[in-house]
Amino acid sequence: MEETFVPFRGIKNDIQGRLLCYKQDWTGGFKAGFRILAPTTYIFFASAIPVISFGEQLERNTDGVLTAVQTLVSTAICGIIHSIIGGQPLLILGVAEPTVIMYTFMFTFAKQRPDLGRELFLAWTGWVCVWTAALLFLLAILGACSIINRFTRVAGELFGMLIAMLFMQQAIKGLVDEFRIPKREDTTLTEFMPSWRFANGMFALVLSFGLLLTALRSRKARSWRYGSGWVRSLVADYGVPLMVLVWTAISYIPTKSVPEGIPRRLFSPNPWSPGAYGNWTDMLNVPILYILGAFIPATMIAVLYYFDHSVASQLAQQKEFNLRKPPSFHYDLLLLGFLTLMCGLLGIPPSNGVIPQSPMHTKSLATLKHQLLRNRLVATARESIQTNSSLGQLYGNMQEAYQQMQTPLVYQEPSSARGLKELKESTVQLASSMGSFDAPVDETVFDVDKEIDDLLPVEVKEQRVSNLLQAVMVGGCVAAMPALRMIPTSVLWGYFAFMAIESLPGNQFWERILLLFTAPSRRYKVLEDYHATFVETVPFKTIAMFTVFQTTYLLLCFGITWVPIAGLLFPLLIMLLVPVRQYVLPKFFKGVHLQDLDAADYEEAPAVPFNIPEGELGGGRLSFAADGGEILDGIITRSRGEIKHMCSPKVTSSSSATPAKDGKVLQSPRVGELRGERTPRSGGRGPHSPMTGEVGPSHLGISPRKSASDQ
Amino acid sequence: MEETFVPFRGIKNDIQGRLLCYKQDWTGGFKAGFRILAPTTYIFFASAIPVISFGEQLERNTDGVLTAVQTLVSTAICGIIHSIIGGQPLLILGVAEPTVIMYTFMFTFAKQRPDLGRELFLAWTGWVCVWTAALLFLLAILGACSIINRFTRVAGELFGMLIAMLFMQQAIKGLVDEFRIPKREDTTLTEFMPSWRFANGMFALVLSFGLLLTALRSRKARSWRYGSGWVRSLVADYGVPLMVLVWTAISYIPTKSVPEGIPRRLFSPNPWSPGAYGNWTDMLNVPILYILGAFIPATMIAVLYYFDHSVASQLAQQKEFNLRKPPSFHYDLLLLGFLTLMCGLLGIPPSNGVIPQSPMHTKSLATLKHQLLRNRLVATARESIQTNSSLGQLYGNMQEAYQQMQTPLVYQEPSSARGLKELKESTVQLASSMGSFDAPVDETVFDVDKEIDDLLPVEVKEQRVSNLLQAVMVGGCVAAMPALRMIPTSVLWGYFAFMAIESLPGNQFWERILLLFTAPSRRYKVLEDYHATFVETVPFKTIAMFTVFQTTYLLLCFGITWVPIAGLLFPLLIMLLVPVRQYVLPKFFKGVHLQDLDAADYEEAPAVPFNIPEGELGGGRLSFAADGGEILDGIITRSRGEIKHMCSPKVTSSSSATPAKDGKVLQSPRVGELRGERTPRSGGRGPHSPMTGEVGPSHLGISPRKSASDQ
Repeated sequence: MEETFVPFRGIKNDIQGRLLCYKQDWTGGFKAGFRILAPTTYIFFASAIPVISFGEQLERNTDGVLTAVQTLVSTAICGIIHSIIGGQPLLILGVAEPTVIMYTFMFTFAKQRPDLGRELFLAWTGWVCVWTAALLFLLAILGACSIINRFTRVAGELFGMLIAMLFMQQAIKGLVDEFRIPKREDTTLTEFMPSWRFANGMFALVLSFGLLLTALRSRKARSWRYGSGWVRSLVADYGVPLMVLVWTAISYIPTKSVPEGIPRRLFSPNPWSPGAYGNWTDMLNVPILYILGAFIPATMIAVLYYFDHSVASQLAQQKEFNLRKPPSFHYDLLLLGFLTLMCGLLGIPPSNGVIPQSPMHTKSLATLKHQLLRNRLVATARESIQTNSSLGQLYGNMQEAYQQMQTPLVYQEPSSARGLKELKESTVQLASSMGSFDAPVDETVFDVDKEIDDLLPVEVKEQRVSNLLQAVMVGGCVAAMPALRMIPTSVLWGYFAFMAIESLPGNQFWERILLLFTAPSRRYKVLEDYHATFVETVPFKTIAMFTVFQTTYLLLCFGITWVPIAGLLFPLLIMLLVPVRQYVLPKFFKGVHLQDLDAADYEEAPAVPFNIPEGELGGGRLSFAADGGEILDGIITRSRGEIKHMCSPKVTSSSSATPAKDGKVLQSPRVGELRGERTPRSGGRGPHSPMTGEVGPSHLGISPRKSASDQ
Repeated sequence: MEETFVPFRGIKNDIQGRLLCYKQDWTGGFKAGFRILAPTTYIFFASAIPVISFGEQLERNTDGVLTAVQTLVSTAICGIIHSIIGGQPLLILGVAEPTVIMYTFMFTFAKQRPDLGRELFLAWTGWVCVWTAALLFLLAILGACSIINRFTRVAGELFGMLIAMLFMQQAIKGLVDEFRIPKREDTTLTEFMPSWRFANGMFALVLSFGLLLTALRSRKARSWRYGSGWVRSLVADYGVPLMVLVWTAISYIPTKSVPEGIPRRLFSPNPWSPGAYGNWTDMLNVPILYILGAFIPATMIAVLYYFDHSVASQLAQQKEFNLRKPPSFHYDLLLLGFLTLMCGLLGIPPSNGVIPQSPMHTKSLATLKHQLLRNRLVATARESIQTNSSLGQLYGNMQEAYQQMQTPLVYQEPSSARGLKELKESTVQLASSMGSFDAPVDETVFDVDKEIDDLLPVEVKEQRVSNLLQAVMVGGCVAAMPALRMIPTSVLWGYFAFMAIESLPGNQFWERILLLFTAPSRRYKVLEDYHATFVETVPFKTIAMFTVFQTTYLLLCFGITWVPIAGLLFPLLIMLLVPVRQYVLPKFFKGVHLQDLDAADYEEAPAVPFNIPEGELGGGRLSFAADGGEILDGIITRSRGEIKHMCSPKVTSSSSATPAKDGKVLQSPRVGELRGERTPRSGGRGPHSPMTGEVGPSHLGISPRKSASDQ
């Protein structure tokens, strides 16, 4: 994206770009049929559950002025509007933790002011939103988003980690509170007798860890060896919501032996609680001084949203996803302005693009697209095998089928087609090495299921339906409050921990932290793994320094959110990271190193996250990835870096496209040569190594696929 | 072992055989130094903890006539005697679950008899022991153990599974009881208020699952990537006891907020409780009728011990361990007779060889031996590299060092030496392929740590020290009762589950059960895994039938233990399996198939257990096995089949000896050819495939080592 600051140009471009594919956004979505429900429910839970408990958090912090109802309503309305007229439909909107923090700060401030107080708090926040909206308009119109590329990994990943930390903090605080008597509760109830409180706490531990562990497992169901295929993919698709249900059910088992209220369940108010939805009326009662003063928090929120919204959108549109449709940063920011204004007037906390839900959304859509493509190609292949066509013809047909599946866009890149061809060659080569190129194929030569997965590039089902549906469902929650009340809070905490953990893999910041703790004698394993460039190109000492710096900065940001009023400034601190990265860091680190450690715009050689020791977190994963459902699922649910991207013209793309190739070649003599070139310890090489084009791919390719085919 | 029934011959041979290495049994043990403590403590806990809780079980079932003290004393005394004058020092003795069951049956019987009753129960069991001892003498003298080879996998593994089931049953029952009011307790105590009972149960869940999960993890510490080497091996060696301590400590955290007695802890009586140790005096008061009647349970127990003792001993001496010292089935059975007699006279329940502790013992000693060898060879190699000697010399030196480490036995087999040489060749070949045979070696060509692990055959530190020490420690428990009382019972239940699970991998019966549940579309993965012969040579339908038969038989055995008095007969049912296997099964299954499904004497091609989906149970394991500590640890703690054995002259041995070779070869061009001969799906081949000698090894070798060297 070139950095132009001509007013409105960015917005104009965005709108033009998106209009071209607007119709397809809908048709494509509906064509996917019922399968669209998988990503939808997955994201629905991922955005509803936090929003609900943020609501509860707000309720505690604002003496009940704001409740889960308001947060849900805000998320739903903004989500619906964005999914319909928004630019980038992959972006998920919701009331985020930072917003909650800001609102808490503002409430504690307002409460102390006699001429503002609890009554006018909402009205005042209304003004804050007005100012925020104004600032967002300004930023959008002036094309502030065109500097988005300066939001490099450092900033984005640090923010991601911060969110993860906030989630984890919430989970832990929640669990600890299960042992305590909640505020605003009458302490005479039996369930608050020490014995029952202890029982409740222990039960909470069981439920939340139960949910956490099972949820983490269920995401990997595709790689299970037991149970028939459809069960496995059902669990993989709907496992997390399923587990929420299961553990909620379990929480009802001991009801006979325990008093009402154990375990504690979601507390949520009557949907139509007073106060809300008529905010603008009393906005006029706010003293002028405060109306002006509202500008100060407004700047903070504006900065926060500008950053948060853009980064979320950026993470949802990484190169590795091979998106075919254009981004829309400027226009979305403008829209966000309007949404904020609306929320302010309604007296509900505004929503903005959320992490990790947005990237989760894209990932789940990639899985969806993969399944669709896969089914089609498998069918074609089987057909051709029936009519014993040769391997050549077989690929011809598949090529055709694949092309038909491609969404006819205006500026169709040839890339993905190329991807398929390239892979074809490799496999054909294998076949000929088996001397059976022209002979009719059969399953032994061409193992349909496995080959096809190797052929498929990562693509994303880009459409608006899933986003709209999940927003509507979130809205439905308001009505479904009675049902939601059945969920134990402890399950919630488990889910928070789950989201925090799910968001870590692929975050290179996190991976570097792990690297610091890796025993020196084991570092070579990292190299033998599928790994990011910097591991090889940057000296360990530099990596360590850089990571330590980043960590301290993170802790600073985290720490400041604890400071009473000054905490209001934490968005500044995050934003500050951008100039710091651009002007300060270069003074301390070599440019080349910085570029590797902090690949701007996430362009870099594909990387796979470390195998975290417990197979649980994925250690065992790749070794199972024998059919792509898993590999992709693996890829998808793990690192951003690791996804093969077809559209970047750089060497990396070829290197990243080849794992499949080697996966095949493995079973052919060629692997011998490939391995020959390789010293025992060299793992993958990034674009920065001279030989990449040649050897890199084989290395990069080999690890996961080998374990796949030989495990 | 040839089947001779000449009286005393078997015993004579055994004694002669063991006498030859008796001195070395001690010297070797002491030479190992402090390292011997790792296997010792590991086994100490593995035998002490169950014995204690069997004691508690007995106490409940015998109205306190027998307690943990008696079981501990019996285990300690028998253990000490066996470790000193016993034949096979790898065999661990202890009071086993079957014994507890038998004693329970006998007590319920005795209690109902007016002229026997609670008072004379011990005296009567004394007579039972006398008869049992007599029968055992008879069996030993007549060389009944020479038919030991007819105790094939079917019988052994079925028994193993039965024990595992009994352990698991105990764990589950225990956990459930944590929610109930224990018998013989005054129900007015606060800790038995419904609320505290529930709290206690939940706490128990947390503690036992905590122990189970962490213990399972800690066993794999060698493959962790974090923490320095010594920490990792410390955890791997002492992890399980460590976890017992940790979770016991955790159980004390909430003591302030909970009443005394939550969580429940081991209840154990005053060590010098009345009744015990003077049994023979009142044995004479037993009515003659019952003295004769005692013969009936005696036969059962004799059958049970004959079988249990032999199978435990057999499992502890599998071919794959490459033991260098002779077995001693006959003599050990004779000794067992004396021990039983002694216990009877003392009025304590007798001990016998236990599963899974005995094989666990051998495995931990193999790990020990491996470490010793490894350190020595690594040192040598480093040295040679310092003096830049060529690869040729390097191996010369290592060969030498290795030979020095060999225990000088009378009938030294050349095998293991051959093993090393053979492996040398392969690696040298690699080197020359890298064209660096005569050039001085450096770490890049010869990565000491990794190569050496590939060189080492599995060997076991055969000695008496660890067995003696652990027995003494068990004895110490009697004095340490006050300390033991601190362990929460729930931790105990977790430990039971741990032992049950630890005993499963490598049990082909279990693996076949898993196979039945594997989705057909995933079976090929089993082939891609390192796997047992039968998977390829036996049609799935046959495998299924065989497994179903075995399962029903298992359930029968398990079920009968529930039947009040008739349950007494369950040892018969197990023993019956031997003739059934020999005369009935062949009517239903092809001989070849039977031989593969039920390799007599456990001789067969090496196999690795399935990757159980959760990395936890080992799925992720092999993929981590990058230095042999792990590989071996992997091998050791997993399947019996998978261990390379060097001493059997058969093809299998060569095939099983080669993994290391291929591990190496992998990085050389040769792998290309090897793989070329291989159709995508063919995994390992057993000795029954024509080509084995040639190709088999490479297949068998490839999988684990590859993942080892490339992960």
